Formats: sequence, structure tokens, C-alpha cells
Amino acid sequence: MLVQAYGAHAGDKPLEPLQIIRRTPATHDVQIDIAFCGICHSDLHQVRAEWAGTQFPCVPGHEIVGRVSAVGAHVVDFKVGDLVGVGCIVDSCKHCEDCATGLENYCDGMVGTYNFPTPDAPGWTLGGYSQNIVVHERYVLRIRHPEEQLAAVAPLLCAGITTYSPLRHWNAGPGKKIGVVGIGGLGHMGIKLAHAMGAHVVAFTTSESKREAAKELGADEVVVSRNAEEMAAHAKSFDFILNTVAAPHDLDAFQVLLKRDGALTLVGAPASPHPSPNVFNLIMKRRTIAGSMIGGIPETQEMLDFCAEHGIVADIELVRVDQINESYERMLKGDVKYRFVIDNATLAG
Amino acid sequence: MLVQAYGAHAGDKPLEPLQIIRRTPATHDVQIDIAFCGICHSDLHQVRAEWAGTQFPCVPGHEIVGRVSAVGAHVVDFKVGDLVGVGCIVDSCKHCEDCATGLENYCDGMVGTYNFPTPDAPGWTLGGYSQNIVVHERYVLRIRHPEEQLAAVAPLLCAGITTYSPLRHWNAGPGKKIGVVGIGGLGHMGIKLAHAMGAHVVAFTTSESKREAAKELGADEVVVSRNAEEMAAHAKSFDFILNTVAAPHDLDAFQVLLKRDGALTLVGAPASPHPSPNVFNLIMKRRTIAGSMIGGIPETQEMLDFCAEHGIVADIELVRVDQINESYERMLKGDVKYRFVIDNATLAG
Ligand SMILES: [Zn+2]
Ligand SMILES: [Zn+2]
Ligand SMILES: [Zn+2]
Ligand SMILES: [Zn+2]
Repeated sequence: MLVQAYGAHAGDKPLEPLQIIRRTPATHDVQIDIAFCGICHSDLHQVRAEWAGTQFPCVPGHEIVGRVSAVGAHVVDFKVGDLVGVGCIVDSCKHCEDCATGLENYCDGMVGTYNFPTPDAPGWTLGGYSQNIVVHERYVLRIRHPEEQLAAVAPLLCAGITTYSPLRHWNAGPGKKIGVVGIGGLGHMGIKLAHAMGAHVVAFTTSESKREAAKELGADEVVVSRNAEEMAAHAKSFDFILNTVAAPHDLDAFQVLLKRDGALTLVGAPASPHPSPNVFNLIMKRRTIAGSMIGGIPETQEMLDFCAEHGIVADIELVRVDQINESYERMLKGDVKYRFVIDNATLAG
Repeated sequence: MLVQAYGAHAGDKPLEPLQIIRRTPATHDVQIDIAFCGICHSDLHQVRAEWAGTQFPCVPGHEIVGRVSAVGAHVVDFKVGDLVGVGCIVDSCKHCEDCATGLENYCDGMVGTYNFPTPDAPGWTLGGYSQNIVVHERYVLRIRHPEEQLAAVAPLLCAGITTYSPLRHWNAGPGKKIGVVGIGGLGHMGIKLAHAMGAHVVAFTTSESKREAAKELGADEVVVSRNAEEMAAHAKSFDFILNTVAAPHDLDAFQVLLKRDGALTLVGAPASPHPSPNVFNLIMKRRTIAGSMIGGIPETQEMLDFCAEHGIVADIELVRVDQINESYERMLKGDVKYRFVIDNATLAG
């Protein structure tokens, strides 16, 4: 099946309209007409070949929501017309320990939604900047939000689960003091989610201008991290800090805000290294620095249901496909509150 | 009470005999005639003023074993003649959350056995390179090993607990694959303890010549970490790696050997930073880098009892006080298997 998409033919070329082939749904496949697709920083890094191994043409997009338009013969959990989503994962080995425990995100055979090897043409996966997608039922998520929220649900599939998973893993909840560093696509979800989990949430930003916005998102307190006095007032007080900032920066400034046994967890990898963390800060309070990558399929469903129940969606700006290149430029400048979402209906031209 | 000790008057001076004053035991104090004291790397760093804030005269030593020679009026758990030990901690605030949970080692008011503020003369604590010491009963440990092992028990008070605590905290035991990096004073204890806990133990050394020795200590496997092929054979297989090497080195080489959710825990802080760890390695498998500092008093007692039960002591070389300076030089060259212990009887000289 030939479908309209939007992608790039080289790392230094803008994205443009192109046509791609989707496979006919196999027995366990779900075909989804894509209504909306969020724009993630990863899309930009991959399509511009800032990360290694980009295959061209490259069609990014892993914050996908839409309606089921066909199902394979053995699919029982989804039917035509269902509201569904697809995130960063479209396949995995299905038999390793990670897959067996619903942590497909850590499976060595995980297949990402774009730029991962697949038997389908052209040999690598093509993402959600397209009219439809065909995905094994295991990796399809049910959306229980009202339909009018659908565009704002899209970013939950990457930004939502990427922050939800570490917040749950490190036990954010009532009685816990949780920090969220960076108030962007990921960070704004982290604040909303940690708040809904019942934690005391402190948002960290480098920008005085984001103070009020962070409170509106659900932060109990906001700290401007350039302000040493404000930072010092929170020394040794956090149970957990979720750090969404990928740009190289001083991790020690946040480490010293952790209590004994506190964790600073990074969800973004910097292009050049952070300054090397001070080991004394780790040793003195048995603190940890950790990483976390998206989340597994069962946890993604749990996150979507949690968000539906708590009325949580992303704050978005809806754009047409022909605004994608411009949206990338604005995203690089931090000029978005807080996530661009593509209206995939505009692909029909 | 005036007692003989061995210490330094300046960072660039050798240690020499000197006299110090010990307080008369207060109601909750235990006075201990010191039989043996281990020599720890920290002793050298502090007394040579390589670490900030050294007060002179400085008397190091925090691997102390001996016999109770007097007790305060309210002491009920110890009596004259008991075999006891004192480790790195001689006081703490006694009322914070850390103290309340037996983690005095993480108390902000922890008083180290040497070079920490005290009301006693001369204003800072003086350690175990001395004939006796007076310590609040809370920080005195009972030794259940046979008396003939006493000298070899001394290093358990720092090297033992510093490795035991993280091994326990990160659940070393049957079914777990545990790495121990570095086969020195700390590492040789880590291997013995992890083995006794029932884990599968892999020792890492830079030196081919330590292969056999590591096996004798209880390692199931030994990996020469300079050998890339040997390292690669263990990729993604460890539950936990205890890293006892303080010298700056590549942490990534060990990170990639961890399974999902595995931890690399450092117990030594380098004088200059390690190369900055690769954040991708953390993110891809939800791995952590952590620190751990000695252990609390209840856990130190647990460790001593565990060692007594399993017949575990350190491998030591006994030296006279007048050999301390020479022992430091040999320790710096790694020329000791694996811990020097001072025979404090030689102080009477
Ligand atoms: Zn993403
Ligand atoms: Zn798998
Ligand atoms: Zn020590
Ligand atoms: Zn305390």
C-alpha cells in the first residue's frame, strides 16, 4: 500500500513530501490511520544524521495516535475504529527476559518506530510522519481519552512514558520530594505526572521567565538553577531528581540536592560529555546517577490509562506537515509550549 | 591520661612517636587497650595532607582492635577484658534519620576516628596508631573471632565494612553475578565476602600476575581488564560491580558489563576525576553509577559476626610502629598482600 509521508532524503536536506510503502496487515498486525504525530527531539537528531546510522529516506515520528483501519485475522483486542497509539517501539524479540517482563524497551532486539532494520521496504522502519502505519498488535496501545484530546495525547507516547517510567521506578508518590530538571517537551510532562502521582514537585529551570508556567503545570516550587542561593536551600532534600536536559551541564549541582540514597536519573544523552560527576557526592550519601529509556509496553498502557483518569495530556501546538522544518528550528530555540504535534490530515494535500 | 602514639606534625614530615591525651571514660564510654591497628589508604591521604583540612599533630588509624580496659558507669554491654573493635566512626548526632536507622556513616554529624572535631584535646580526634582509645559504647563493636586471629580482624573495621555494606545493599548472594574491581586492601575483602555470600564472583585486575591470587581469595573467575576480548565475553552479564579502584580510570568499560538495572558502585574517590561516564550506557539498560561509604554500626557488627561465622579475616602483614613510613611507601607501590597491620605493643618500645 502506497501512502503519503513526510521525510528527508539526506541529513542536510529539509523534510519534504514523499511516498512510502506499508505492508498488508499480517495475522497479528494492526493498521492505523494516523490522525496526529508529535515532534520529538529525537526525530530531529535522527533525520539530520546527528546520530549515527541514519538511513535515507528517513521518515521520523514516534508519538503516533489514530484509528484502527484494518486488523489481521488473529487480532482480538483491537477492531476497526478503535482509538489507538504507537510509541517508540514497533517490535522486539518477544522471548528474552526483558520482553517476558514487559520491558521491551530494554530488549536487545527492540525495533524502533523509525530507522531500525525491518524486512519491510525499504529495509528500515518509517515513522509517524505518514498517513498510516502497520504494527504488530503487541506494540499497539489503547487510548481512553476523549477523542477531542487526541492531538494532545500523541506526545504521551514518547515524552509521557519517558518521564512516567523513571518516576514510577524510583517511587515518586505521596511524601516524596521530586525534582524535574528542564521544562520542555519531556520536563513539562514530568511535572504533570509527578504532581498527579501525589509527590511534592520542584521544577528546575535556567530561565526566570518559566517560573509561573512551571507552577501552572503543577510544580509546588520552582528553582532557577543559576541561582546558587535558591539551589542551596534545597540541599540534601530530594528523594529523586528526573533530569530531562540533554545539553552538557554540571550534574553535581543536582547531586548535592539529593538525600541519602537519592537518585539523579538522566533521560537524555548529551552530544558531548557532561563534566565528570564528583564521586565524593555519590559516596557521601550513597547517591546514584542513573539512566532510563522510554518504558515498556504494559507500562505505556498503564501511563495512558493513568493520564486518561487524571485528565492529563501534553500542552501542544498543532502544525501542518509543511510546517515541520520551521517547527524544528523553533524547537531548537525552545520556542514551543511544549510540544509540536503534526495534523496528519494535512498530508493528504 | 597520657598515652604513646605515632603520628605526624606536618604533611611533609614522616610519622614519629608522640604523646597524646585520652579522656577519662564518661558514663557511656569504653576504654580500649589497642592490640592492633590496620593501615588504610585514607590514613596516608589524611596524614600527608593530600586531603583538605588535616589538623596536626595527626594520628591516623581506624581499623582498631583490642581489649576493653575500663568502662563508664552506665555501660552494660561491655566489660573489662572483652575483645572489641572500633572502625571509622567514634560519634554521630544520635538523633537524625540516619542515626535512627543505624546508618551513622551517613549522618551529617558523623565524627570520624581521626581528624574530626571533638571537645577532647587537642580539638580533633586522634586515631588508632596509639596505645588506647576512649569511645562512646554505641560505636564499639564486639569481636567473636578467636583471639589468635585478632590482628587479621583489624582490617574488617574499614576494608571489611566498606565492601560488605554495598554488597549487601545491592543484594549480592546466590544466583547473582558480582564483579570486584581491584585486588588490594578493599578488593581482597570484597572477593572473600561476596564469595561467602554465595554469589558468583568475578575479580577484575589490571595485572596478569594477580590471576591466581584472586582465585585463592574466592573469585570464581578472574578478568584482566586490559584484555578487551576477556572483557567483551562478560558484556551485559553482571548484577552488580563493586569498584574499589580510586585512581582515575574508564568506568564505561565496566558499565557495559552490567545487565539491565545493574549498578556499578564506587567506594573510592579519585584525586582527579574519572573520564566522564557515557550517559548512553546508563540510559540503554537503566544502569546506575553509585557510591557507598563504609557502613553503619549495626551493619558493622553484622559483618563482624558474618566473618566470624565464615572464618573470614583479612590477609595481612604485621609491622612494628617504626615501619609505618616504610609501609606507606610499599602500599603506594601495591607491595602488600593485602593489608599492613600495626602491632601496637611496639608503641611501648
Ligand atoms: Zn521521542
Ligand atoms: Zn526481547
Ligand atoms: Zn579506611
Ligand atoms: Zn545523625
